[in-house]
Amino acid sequence: MAHKICVIEGDGIGKEVVPATIKVLEATGLDFEFIYAEAGDEVYKRTGKALPEETIEKALESEAVLFGAAGETAADVIVKLRHILDTYANVRPVKSYKGVKCLRDDIDYVIVRENTEGLYKGIEAEIDEGITTATRVITEKASERIFKFAFELARERKKEGKEGKVTCAHKANVLKVTDGLFKRVFYKVAQEYKDIKVEDYYIDAMNMYIITKPHVFDVVVTSNLFGDILSDGAAGTVGGLGLAPSANIGDEHGLFEPVHGSAPDIAGKGIANPTATILSAVLMLKYLGEHETANRIEKALEEVLALGLTTPDLGGNLKTFEMAEEIIKRL
Amino acid sequence: MAHKICVIEGDGIGKEVVPATIKVLEATGLDFEFIYAEAGDEVYKRTGKALPEETIEKALESEAVLFGAAGETAADVIVKLRHILDTYANVRPVKSYKGVKCLRDDIDYVIVRENTEGLYKGIEAEIDEGITTATRVITEKASERIFKFAFELARERKKEGKEGKVTCAHKANVLKVTDGLFKRVFYKVAQEYKDIKVEDYYIDAMNMYIITKPHVFDVVVTSNLFGDILSDGAAGTVGGLGLAPSANIGDEHGLFEPVHGSAPDIAGKGIANPTATILSAVLMLKYLGEHETANRIEKALEEVLALGLTTPDLGGNLKTFEMAEEIIKRL
Ligand SMILES: CC(C)[C@H](C(=O)O)[C@@H](O)C(=O)O
Ligand SMILES: CC(C)[C@H](C(=O)O)[C@@H](O)C(=O)O
Repeated sequence: MAHKICVIEGDGIGKEVVPATIKVLEATGLDFEFIYAEAGDEVYKRTGKALPEETIEKALESEAVLFGAAGETAADVIVKLRHILDTYANVRPVKSYKGVKCLRDDIDYVIVRENTEGLYKGIEAEIDEGITTATRVITEKASERIFKFAFELARERKKEGKEGKVTCAHKANVLKVTDGLFKRVFYKVAQEYKDIKVEDYYIDAMNMYIITKPHVFDVVVTSNLFGDILSDGAAGTVGGLGLAPSANIGDEHGLFEPVHGSAPDIAGKGIANPTATILSAVLMLKYLGEHETANRIEKALEEVLALGLTTPDLGGNLKTFEMAEEIIKRL
Repeated sequence: MAHKICVIEGDGIGKEVVPATIKVLEATGLDFEFIYAEAGDEVYKRTGKALPEETIEKALESEAVLFGAAGETAADVIVKLRHILDTYANVRPVKSYKGVKCLRDDIDYVIVRENTEGLYKGIEAEIDEGITTATRVITEKASERIFKFAFELARERKKEGKEGKVTCAHKANVLKVTDGLFKRVFYKVAQEYKDIKVEDYYIDAMNMYIITKPHVFDVVVTSNLFGDILSDGAAGTVGGLGLAPSANIGDEHGLFEPVHGSAPDIAGKGIANPTATILSAVLMLKYLGEHETANRIEKALEEVLALGLTTPDLGGNLKTFEMAEEIIKRL
């Protein structure tokens, strides 16, 4: 049976990197049914809604969602979609590929970002003129769920030869109650995974270690906004956002998107790097159980990167679609 | 008249890097009166107080405070001291020195971190079993004050030949009320500094840019916890915490400390890198108006770093005091 995928190109380079990725997916020989839906600035300008009801319905009905990028409305679209689909784990691989300028050539870890609470709850107020507050929410339930996810992932990776380690990043020295809870639950859940090594760092130190010793990490788990900040820094150590994919995973749904935005500065020129979206599609295929095809695409992409057959941001001179074609040739 | 300096060595390597720094200060020929005070784990174990009243008094009475490091009690000691002294600007230079492994050799900017509010207000609660909250506070008053500080600093640096630019990092797309205010006040204050360039980025993107384009920044201003996370990452790009100094500046008081902690793993071995504390003392001297002496120390330190006359963390084989001696020889 065909995999039913909801495709949301969104704005800017989303309209370039997503179609290029769809070409690659179509070339695999797998059977897909692509359901197109709208979200972002453009549909907002036309209809007054950045995330139309129809898009939500299509997303909920599909096996997975492939998302490109949204412009100014990004926060409303993507945070809301993650919420509606209850994709509680935001999974962001950090990996050095040959041919890409990275801090080291042996970086290979995954950031697991809690995707439902923290400062993303949207609880804000102006309590008096010029005095504003935002409420950071950390619960035992959501923490337990994300830690279990992280430990399960570490187990899976261990089967593939990785170290089998989970590193928790928090700020429990200052946020004694919220991150105190977070850290406590981490070590509680760790009890159920004695086969996996554990360690924890303050988020500030962690943000240095992703630069000074990125090769020692396996699975890194942290809260929502810390994960947001940390994963962009991590992307910077392995070639930038042009290469950073992400998977939003829940018990019922999966949403896959490049970490980058709509990049209005280069949109329309056909030179956007499709790698982050193609790698997001690779994560989607694994989610769908299509491991063999996922690995095939990743291997072809690795060859293309190593040969320098890339878009200008990585030093090559190919257009978005030309890079996709090079991958297709090698599938 | 002698400069009256409150000296708090604290715990661990604080007891090594601070005395080494005092040696350097004494060798400058300037007149100092050093008032010693205690804070941290050791005094806590002995007296039940990590930050004794007497220490607070001595700090309040002095022209400046030179602080080493505290162990487990660090958050209580340092956050409280910053609060009591109302040192609202946490100034963290990020600079590449010859002889030190940096991402680039042309990095030279300053992170200005708001030091009084944000998530450091300590407003936390367990509102129900397993459900906790922390309140992030952003006010117009504190924001205005820190932005003015950043713009004044950019003006000073412009006189020394720097670009004259302030970059504001925030998360106004998600924290629409709190960081919406923060960003709005930034552009309001910018109106008074038309000679200074301005730009703003989301904190996640900013955390990547300190890796991918650190040479383009001049003064970077952000809120408390974002500054905490960002500055450790930034330290990682210019040789690590062994080299990262900081100044906590208020209208009445100044507190100067290395960004690193008490490093229990190497404490007592006499091999801790004194650079971060010596550079913090350089910032202190500038604060005291002793610019000539400050520059002399920095120049001597630059020579020592360039010659590789360093502690093991930087690849050298000197002890803490030997490195200080090399600096003193070149004053
Ligand atoms: C667009 C924005 C709301 C989003 C986030 O903060 O999660 C983005 O930065 C990301 O990392 O996916
Ligand atoms: C020790 C800790 C409370 C402190 C902070 O979070 O401010 C430290 O990380 C720093 O950056 O000075």
